[in-house]
Amino acid sequence: MIRLCVSHPLSQGASLTPAPDQARYLISVMRLQVGAELLLFNGRDGEWRARVEAVGKRDCVLRVEALARPQADPPDLELVVALVKRGPLETIIEKATELGVRRIRLITTRRTNADHTRIERLEAIATEAAEQTGRLDVPDIVPPERLDALLGGWDAGRSLMFCDEAGDDPDAEWGGSAGRARPALRALGEAAEGPWAVLIGPEGGFAPEERASLRTLPYVLPITLGPRILRADTAAIAALTLWQAAMGDWRPS
Amino acid sequence: MIRLCVSHPLSQGASLTPAPDQARYLISVMRLQVGAELLLFNGRDGEWRARVEAVGKRDCVLRVEALARPQADPPDLELVVALVKRGPLETIIEKATELGVRRIRLITTRRTNADHTRIERLEAIATEAAEQTGRLDVPDIVPPERLDALLGGWDAGRSLMFCDEAGDDPDAEWGGSAGRARPALRALGEAAEGPWAVLIGPEGGFAPEERASLRTLPYVLPITLGPRILRADTAAIAALTLWQAAMGDWRPS
Repeated sequence: MIRLCVSHPLSQGASLTPAPDQARYLISVMRLQVGAELLLFNGRDGEWRARVEAVGKRDCVLRVEALARPQADPPDLELVVALVKRGPLETIIEKATELGVRRIRLITTRRTNADHTRIERLEAIATEAAEQTGRLDVPDIVPPERLDALLGGWDAGRSLMFCDEAGDDPDAEWGGSAGRARPALRALGEAAEGPWAVLIGPEGGFAPEERASLRTLPYVLPITLGPRILRADTAAIAALTLWQAAMGDWRPS
Repeated sequence: MIRLCVSHPLSQGASLTPAPDQARYLISVMRLQVGAELLLFNGRDGEWRARVEAVGKRDCVLRVEALARPQADPPDLELVVALVKRGPLETIIEKATELGVRRIRLITTRRTNADHTRIERLEAIATEAAEQTGRLDVPDIVPPERLDALLGGWDAGRSLMFCDEAGDDPDAEWGGSAGRARPALRALGEAAEGPWAVLIGPEGGFAPEERASLRTLPYVLPITLGPRILRADTAAIAALTLWQAAMGDWRPS
């Protein structure tokens, strides 16, 4: 069944007119007729069964019928990701949405090449992924900020999984035992519950001074993702998967 | 440093002329000069340092100098994947190579739409991914076979992780406790060591009779990948990640 993310409040009996591009999708692409059923969510009011009440040439009216699922948010997991090239960045936004992150923070680092991106396009990708994956919310996408500024304002109560995949020297020893990168699953198994974030660097990895500074921070957990070099998008998906499986909502209830 | 997968035997002092497209890449794209260093591997003889010995207009000669790493193969993990659409299939080939699978078996199922694919193109994607990820081999890609034929000839000594992500009814109870899908990490933690494979279905999921038949097989481990619906490529990457982390070469040594 079609799932649509709308901005309108949702409650029993409410009528709403979807945004123009959504109306076009329902009428022209999916060719829904009066009486057709669909599901609606808005990130606040849960998931609702609705029906097409009226169809015009370019718009339609939907009537909200009954609550299908009450609102529930995914675990408090964020993704902090450097502006990599457009293709991998869009893959990361889509997959992070499927993997249940609440918020995606874009960053620039010493070795980031891109310094701008179209947030609206990334938001559209996240919305479509949320509709398809069955979430009741869409992750926030926070416009790019510099890594040092982000860390300067970091809430130390949020742990940060530091995946340094594309570094110069992935086999290098870390500064001390506290800062040594360890296999992700082992490290997560011994880590604290609570809010978390996953940090993914740019194609060229973090600069040595960025890595040194990251590993002195008490809330940073440096981890490794196996013996092969992973692209940024692969590393992001792998790290989020391991967090959900070890600490998130993939765990047995 | 450039890494190149070649078909030639590699040993100290050997000279070789790379394939035409590789020569073009080295000369015209990377603009290597005589004396430039690179790394070579062939899936059998380990990784070797080599140098450009001569450069012509369209070809070049490489001289093998010294062994950099002895041959080592990744763990015995295969991926069995339905022919999904071209974009996600190519993503799966690239990521499965980074995630260290030895062999990728393509299958058709009741609900597979595609029935052919260009194996040569998939092999080229796997080769390039192997060069970039630092592997010493390239995964085999086995041309499409029907799921029932594949299972008919299955070696029962190889366990099969069955990810039924896009099924009609992901919340359905399985036939018996032995066949019940469980959270992947929990299930893998209690599973047998040895050769493994991961099974990923088509966009529309497996047909009910395929799912029923799969769950009767003693070597099949049905698993779930969290509460959200994952696309085929996301499910493949997530399942391979969890296997490597729990049973493969991402484990602490």
